[in-house]
Amino acid sequence: MSAKPLLIVAGIGNGTGKLCTIRQRVYSKAGYRVALIARNGDHLKRLVDEIVASGGEAAAFPILEYTYEATENIWDTIVEYKWPSGQPSDLRVALWNVGVNVFGSFLTVTAKDIQASLEVHVTAGFAFSRKAILAFKANEMDANGCRGTLLFTGATASIRGNVFTSAFAAGKFGIRALSQSLAKEFGKENIHVAHVIIDGSILTDLSLSRRPGEAGEAWKANPDLRLDSESLAKSYLYLTQQDRSAWTWELDLRPAHEKW
Amino acid sequence: MSAKPLLIVAGIGNGTGKLCTIRQRVYSKAGYRVALIARNGDHLKRLVDEIVASGGEAAAFPILEYTYEATENIWDTIVEYKWPSGQPSDLRVALWNVGVNVFGSFLTVTAKDIQASLEVHVTAGFAFSRKAILAFKANEMDANGCRGTLLFTGATASIRGNVFTSAFAAGKFGIRALSQSLAKEFGKENIHVAHVIIDGSILTDLSLSRRPGEAGEAWKANPDLRLDSESLAKSYLYLTQQDRSAWTWELDLRPAHEKW
Amino acid sequence: MSAKPLLIVAGIGNGTGKLCTIRQRVYSKAGYRVALIARNGDHLKRLVDEIVASGGEAAAFPILEYTYEATENIWDTIVEYKWPSGQPSDLRVALWNVGVNVFGSFLTVTAKDIQASLEVHVTAGFAFSRKAILAFKANEMDANGCRGTLLFTGATASIRGNVFTSAFAAGKFGIRALSQSLAKEFGKENIHVAHVIIDGSILTDLSLSRRPGEAGEAWKANPDLRLDSESLAKSYLYLTQQDRSAWTWELDLRPAHEKW
Amino acid sequence: MSAKPLLIVAGIGNGTGKLCTIRQRVYSKAGYRVALIARNGDHLKRLVDEIVASGGEAAAFPILEYTYEATENIWDTIVEYKWPSGQPSDLRVALWNVGVNVFGSFLTVTAKDIQASLEVHVTAGFAFSRKAILAFKANEMDANGCRGTLLFTGATASIRGNVFTSAFAAGKFGIRALSQSLAKEFGKENIHVAHVIIDGSILTDLSLSRRPGEAGEAWKANPDLRLDSESLAKSYLYLTQQDRSAWTWELDLRPAHEKW
Repeated sequence: MSAKPLLIVAGIGNGTGKLCTIRQRVYSKAGYRVALIARNGDHLKRLVDEIVASGGEAAAFPILEYTYEATENIWDTIVEYKWPSGQPSDLRVALWNVGVNVFGSFLTVTAKDIQASLEVHVTAGFAFSRKAILAFKANEMDANGCRGTLLFTGATASIRGNVFTSAFAAGKFGIRALSQSLAKEFGKENIHVAHVIIDGSILTDLSLSRRPGEAGEAWKANPDLRLDSESLAKSYLYLTQQDRSAWTWELDLRPAHEKW
Repeated sequence: MSAKPLLIVAGIGNGTGKLCTIRQRVYSKAGYRVALIARNGDHLKRLVDEIVASGGEAAAFPILEYTYEATENIWDTIVEYKWPSGQPSDLRVALWNVGVNVFGSFLTVTAKDIQASLEVHVTAGFAFSRKAILAFKANEMDANGCRGTLLFTGATASIRGNVFTSAFAAGKFGIRALSQSLAKEFGKENIHVAHVIIDGSILTDLSLSRRPGEAGEAWKANPDLRLDSESLAKSYLYLTQQDRSAWTWELDLRPAHEKW
Repeated sequence: MSAKPLLIVAGIGNGTGKLCTIRQRVYSKAGYRVALIARNGDHLKRLVDEIVASGGEAAAFPILEYTYEATENIWDTIVEYKWPSGQPSDLRVALWNVGVNVFGSFLTVTAKDIQASLEVHVTAGFAFSRKAILAFKANEMDANGCRGTLLFTGATASIRGNVFTSAFAAGKFGIRALSQSLAKEFGKENIHVAHVIIDGSILTDLSLSRRPGEAGEAWKANPDLRLDSESLAKSYLYLTQQDRSAWTWELDLRPAHEKW
Repeated sequence: MSAKPLLIVAGIGNGTGKLCTIRQRVYSKAGYRVALIARNGDHLKRLVDEIVASGGEAAAFPILEYTYEATENIWDTIVEYKWPSGQPSDLRVALWNVGVNVFGSFLTVTAKDIQASLEVHVTAGFAFSRKAILAFKANEMDANGCRGTLLFTGATASIRGNVFTSAFAAGKFGIRALSQSLAKEFGKENIHVAHVIIDGSILTDLSLSRRPGEAGEAWKANPDLRLDSESLAKSYLYLTQQDRSAWTWELDLRPAHEKW
């Protein structure tokens, strides 16, 4: 029985329900099964149910906190998981999509805030990356000459500190540094590491709920103004499918009308 | 009679023959006809012949020098060109792929060298961009919410000056500045502008001829070490097909084993 | 009795003894007393002794570990410290010079390594910055229109992740993000925040000891090849003395012959 | 008779009269004589007169256009110039401060605009740099281990293209590329090359005249909001005086309250 390509995603974003599911479905349609890690068990379950309902394969792996150890443990749980179909998995893509929203004047940032930002974004990201790199090193190369793709979701705060982003940017800068170091060290072993800078708001149930009434409807209806989670997923899939003669480390994504 | 998507490419690279043709064929297969501008008429003709032989539509537009005026003129010639099939064109993509190789110690750079680098990379690039933007403004949006895509080929020298690259980098930095300004000004009008940073050597007849004997064969055979023109073309096509909710301005491309 | 300008430095570098003392003496000569925080009590004591022996005012504040809490506590201890001369202090400059050297392949980085890099570079840096900003906000402006200067020592790894620097760069990127956020938020309150990127090796007893024999002597004798701690200190002092009409956030420093 | 240090400045900015003179006086006070190149002969003459009236040494070298050839010629004229005091010159610093203000929507940029921006900022800058590097190579090292300092004035548009800055940024990016290439190539020969990014408006007669009435008075009176030309000059002088163990290639300068 041939193995089925597996995508492990940590962090499902604040968006839940249909809008976010679409994202996972891009990979699902491309033939991947999806293992989802997230803190919010309810959202997670709904997401998995929706993917399965639309004919995909997905499984939920709730995590209490993104610590180094918990991240390692959940990874092991995924690796040992027996998928209902009985088909073995071929882990090919890992996406570190985890974030913690800590914004506000520097003087409001507590010790706990900065520690949380660093632990969730960076420390747990190191654990996730370690597991991914070790797994990929053991892989055969695919047709594109790749042993595995490790993706990171960044933001404008990954490259620019700003008023009100001190704690968030510290975490985002940190994980970007990791992604660049990994790209340089493991490209030579045919492991592809890439970092995506999202500049703009993503259309999710949550971001929509913050724009009540007609303004929200107009915003939702206009893809010039906000990012579709499906479009993001397509760009991740594109990175996954680049062949080894031309790999991208970093690209930016923003809506057509975004001011930047 | 419906119109056929048209790609205008200025600059075919030093590579000619099969390796480079593949690049244009990526767009050809995606349904585009290709208008090629280049200084070397012989290479240009061969390229067009190969594309046509493989079932694509292509036409050659030789240019003597990349001046502002000549670039405007050749653009007008392309627009007025009657394609053999009689089918009208729908200009959708323009690629500024032009470069002049001026390398060496700063003290060897003559007035002519720097003027040539600036004129070819930047001044002519302004003319090309102007024609493209004006044409795209008159377009309807396609299914992705895009009136047209304007692409630029950059290099590591686009973001880093180095010993021996003063004249080359001055031109490459300049055209990158243009691409960013255009992305910000015309994104709002649903025109997509993107800049691709190529980091590494591209496999072409020319780059191959510089590596004689077994070393060249090994290099040619190993996509971990050099860029395929087909892979580049795929990344351009990907940028062309991004939907307006998630547009990329800049991405880098390098072989898996490139040291950077 | 007028107050004496006070400089608080956290992190004395690996270098000790004369070479490093010179650094503090630049500020000492400029009329500052210096409060030194460091983990290595012996080095610290020797440094203070040397500064005092040369006519300056300095005091040692050993710290066990750079945690958030310990950093806050040591700051309070400094503020309450009674200087032998009895003259009160006017805190004007704070320098976050702390670093932990964690280098090596990503696969050798343990949970502890990355946590240490983040805690020392970033978390403790947040505590230090918080204390500094709060103190500066309470200051009057000096003749240059400045309430206080907060300085950070960065490295090439602050802007570029590389093979063998994943854990170090994650910390260095993180603190750079903080410095930029602070510069933007508190410039408006006439607090000057700056970040210095050191690119190259600093001449210290330690760096010298790594180059035994003639090679070390030649390296020591040639300021084209390594950074003087006095020259660094002068650049910090320059930043301290910029007037508010023209403040620098970031500058780089490297020896004349450094390859970069 | 010992030689007197000479500073050659190309481009006196739009500001004239007292405000701008101060800038040259910083170097004058530091013992330099100043050779000023500029297109506006009247402003130039007034500037020189003011410097001389305040006890400095200065001479005016009007230029019609900043072409490659004219820039080379004016340099030769300066080198051959006999200063009234009879004392020979020791050329130590060259500052490329030239700029052409071309702003506006990309579609308003003419062929002439972009050619002018490139010729003035970049092509003439290459000629100026060539003359400076050749002169410095023939110099002895000074006490700081430097054969000469070549300075460039940049702007935010040197690192970021924006709506309305396409032509200006193309020139500014280009000259920044040159400065980085030169810093890397000639640092090894103890020639110091630096690039200063000015972010904000400089207080000059011209910038003041654009803010009529009380608004202008308030702006003039508040160094938190605009750059002093004297402060800029001090930062240039600082770069000139750095010793070879710690040279800066790039720094940014902005008023304390600038939003960025």
